[in-house]
Amino acid sequence: MIIANNDVAETLLKRRQRLAELIDFPVILWSGCATPRNFPANLFPFRVSSHFLYFAGLPLENAAIRLEGGKLELFIDNPHPSSILWHGEMPTREEIAETMGADAAFPMAELGLKSVDAATIAVQDACTYLKQCDILDRAVSEASTPEGIDLKLAQAIASLRLTHDAGALAELRSSAACSVAVHKVGMAATRNAKTEAEVRGAMEGVIIAHNMTCAYGSIVTVHGEVLHNQHYHHPIQPGDLLLADVGAETATGWASDITRTWAVSGKFSSTQRDIYDLVLAAHDACIAKIYPGVEYQDIHLLAAKVIAQGLVDLGILKGNADDLVAMDAHALFFPHGVGHLLGLDVHDMEDLGDLAGYEQGRKRSDRFGLCYLRLNRPLRAGMLVTIEPGFYQVPGILNDSECREKYQDVVNWERLEQFSDVRGIRIEDDVLVTETGSEVLTAELPTDADSIEQMVKNT
Amino acid sequence: MIIANNDVAETLLKRRQRLAELIDFPVILWSGCATPRNFPANLFPFRVSSHFLYFAGLPLENAAIRLEGGKLELFIDNPHPSSILWHGEMPTREEIAETMGADAAFPMAELGLKSVDAATIAVQDACTYLKQCDILDRAVSEASTPEGIDLKLAQAIASLRLTHDAGALAELRSSAACSVAVHKVGMAATRNAKTEAEVRGAMEGVIIAHNMTCAYGSIVTVHGEVLHNQHYHHPIQPGDLLLADVGAETATGWASDITRTWAVSGKFSSTQRDIYDLVLAAHDACIAKIYPGVEYQDIHLLAAKVIAQGLVDLGILKGNADDLVAMDAHALFFPHGVGHLLGLDVHDMEDLGDLAGYEQGRKRSDRFGLCYLRLNRPLRAGMLVTIEPGFYQVPGILNDSECREKYQDVVNWERLEQFSDVRGIRIEDDVLVTETGSEVLTAELPTDADSIEQMVKNT
Repeated sequence: MIIANNDVAETLLKRRQRLAELIDFPVILWSGCATPRNFPANLFPFRVSSHFLYFAGLPLENAAIRLEGGKLELFIDNPHPSSILWHGEMPTREEIAETMGADAAFPMAELGLKSVDAATIAVQDACTYLKQCDILDRAVSEASTPEGIDLKLAQAIASLRLTHDAGALAELRSSAACSVAVHKVGMAATRNAKTEAEVRGAMEGVIIAHNMTCAYGSIVTVHGEVLHNQHYHHPIQPGDLLLADVGAETATGWASDITRTWAVSGKFSSTQRDIYDLVLAAHDACIAKIYPGVEYQDIHLLAAKVIAQGLVDLGILKGNADDLVAMDAHALFFPHGVGHLLGLDVHDMEDLGDLAGYEQGRKRSDRFGLCYLRLNRPLRAGMLVTIEPGFYQVPGILNDSECREKYQDVVNWERLEQFSDVRGIRIEDDVLVTETGSEVLTAELPTDADSIEQMVKNT
Repeated sequence: MIIANNDVAETLLKRRQRLAELIDFPVILWSGCATPRNFPANLFPFRVSSHFLYFAGLPLENAAIRLEGGKLELFIDNPHPSSILWHGEMPTREEIAETMGADAAFPMAELGLKSVDAATIAVQDACTYLKQCDILDRAVSEASTPEGIDLKLAQAIASLRLTHDAGALAELRSSAACSVAVHKVGMAATRNAKTEAEVRGAMEGVIIAHNMTCAYGSIVTVHGEVLHNQHYHHPIQPGDLLLADVGAETATGWASDITRTWAVSGKFSSTQRDIYDLVLAAHDACIAKIYPGVEYQDIHLLAAKVIAQGLVDLGILKGNADDLVAMDAHALFFPHGVGHLLGLDVHDMEDLGDLAGYEQGRKRSDRFGLCYLRLNRPLRAGMLVTIEPGFYQVPGILNDSECREKYQDVVNWERLEQFSDVRGIRIEDDVLVTETGSEVLTAELPTDADSIEQMVKNT
């Protein structure tokens, strides 16, 4: 059980007061329940709904909160007496209510009496979702397509969660610090590891040792060209690059998200280093440009341009960088967006579809070079975003006949073959937008190739 | 992707032929789908339905198999072309079908045409469960309360899965070997660890490094008296006992389940050692008694008697061991069952309620000392069971006024206070019933107190 201190209760109070300034109807948010793995008593680790966590602060199971006019009512049942044998003493409803600064607390059975005209956001687990529809006595739309007052609620919560208060930032710094330690251990563990799995074990072991959880399924792979690669069985060999995208999440749900790519041998080949330095140049250029008011899509296009220009300089692409970006030639090698919001979710509020990521009225582009961009808003102080440019040789793209035809004149395919030992490189940091520019929360972990080589070799 | 070899395909063929000898109606088993964690793209690690795995052998998502007369038809959709970008090249339906030795393979959409009069077992994830009801066009009961042909199917599958074939045993040995390594690392890591979480991180890191998963939520705690303690935040201090119940599961789902209890300092106190040796005596006595034909409940009652007698010898209980067990006095300190079935689930087939654990016609006892027993059958060669006696001082039991009154004359409460540094001890191994007795699959991990002390101190 996480015990909130007075600062935390104060933070929670401010959040619900701010919500009350935005909407004038009652809200009920459910925490959700654990889902079974292979049988009912063997559960996946419980993850509370992020919207509930934002206002309730505690990872409670089978609970709900009702928010109205800045007041919080907690609904949760006391633990069954027999559960003491298996789970030990648990806090009572009243103790939990005090910890979160609730104005009142009731058994779950009383929630139905207080549900009239309340808005909600659908949770992810089906069991609780059915309860939401039942207690509100209406069909609740999926979180990604809210309607009516639920839409208004989603917009209000998104506007709050888009920027982080001091309480959130303390947690976000804590998960970032853990993830920095995780990547240092991963680099150090590579020298004696024989498989991707062994490096992953060393890295996730650090997250567990911090009593945190993985914010998302780790990527630890010598096949970085598979963007969401979650296999770990490959042997790692000198000459390989190892791409590790691993991030911790605190006990109250705040995420971090770091990627580093290093040479298994501790030394990049000259081609690996050329591309590494190019991806790093894009990473650094993007971070340097982060400032309140700047459009995040322009940061993305800057990464695209730096990568396009660098590939021209290396003789892989031919032509003018602006023209190449306009025709999405950069996306042959950098097919994803340059980053996303980060907060209680690693893709923050992605349960709401693009409602949080995209400024109202904007829609995803159809362009190959823009369609995977998850964030398209002007930046504001207090936003936390990832910056994660990359270079990949994805066979599904580069061997696609349509792609090869469309881009035949702008790619020097023979020159590209010389870079066959660069399957995938990504460099990702967590960047807080500040009043005066930005602060990299993950800055303790070096990015430059020399330092990366040192960390793999010496530690 | 797990590539089955010919032996595996042969094993799968035999399993479905044996099923065909038991039932004369078609069967459809669904694999299930991954469930979202905090948003749809952030999923819990997928765990396939164990019944599907038993006959299909591969951890496929969104698949189904139809079994009839020993034949297997696979239903799965080919990966969407766009998924190559994110997930890389995936095997096609035909390749998967060949790997598992399927007789035919079809897209999912064709499953409805072949669903007439088929039996099934409800899966754990709600999304797939709704599909089961939809495609079979009937209400499918929960797995724990099957009806009609579903009940007949569950009984047939349970009778097969109760004993393990050579293919299963190879996997079970592999997960047991991993778990042995896990516990050795846990003991070695204790010396420099400050919290339970740090020991857990070291232990689960080994499971991940083997490219396996945790078969269940790990227990790593200085509060072993909380039987299902899944908090890891306590500091560990000299004088504490650390109880670790951690087990690995192979990529195709076969589980192991080991508990050891060691002194954080590396040296048991005299009271800790007295109780440790008593629990070990119960553990050894139970394993010595395992033999085909023996009733598992008698093994449980043997553990109860050894513990009762030992507690009499230590002056904690008063009276005759048989009488004490008859009045469930042992259960004051050993309130759970001595073990359970082990296989594709850590409590094997517990999704079926007690259908697999209890011989047909037997029901759970109401007795305090028997009601938590998960297995009540005569043992048969090829069964794998855990043997896990323990001693706990559970405040919820020992401070309960009814308990204290009922057992006031048989407990020497003053003597018990001298054992206050023994909060919880459990020693658990995985024991295969053989034609000639038993084989402890986890025997590579010592149990005796001297060896445990050495492993904590020296490594």
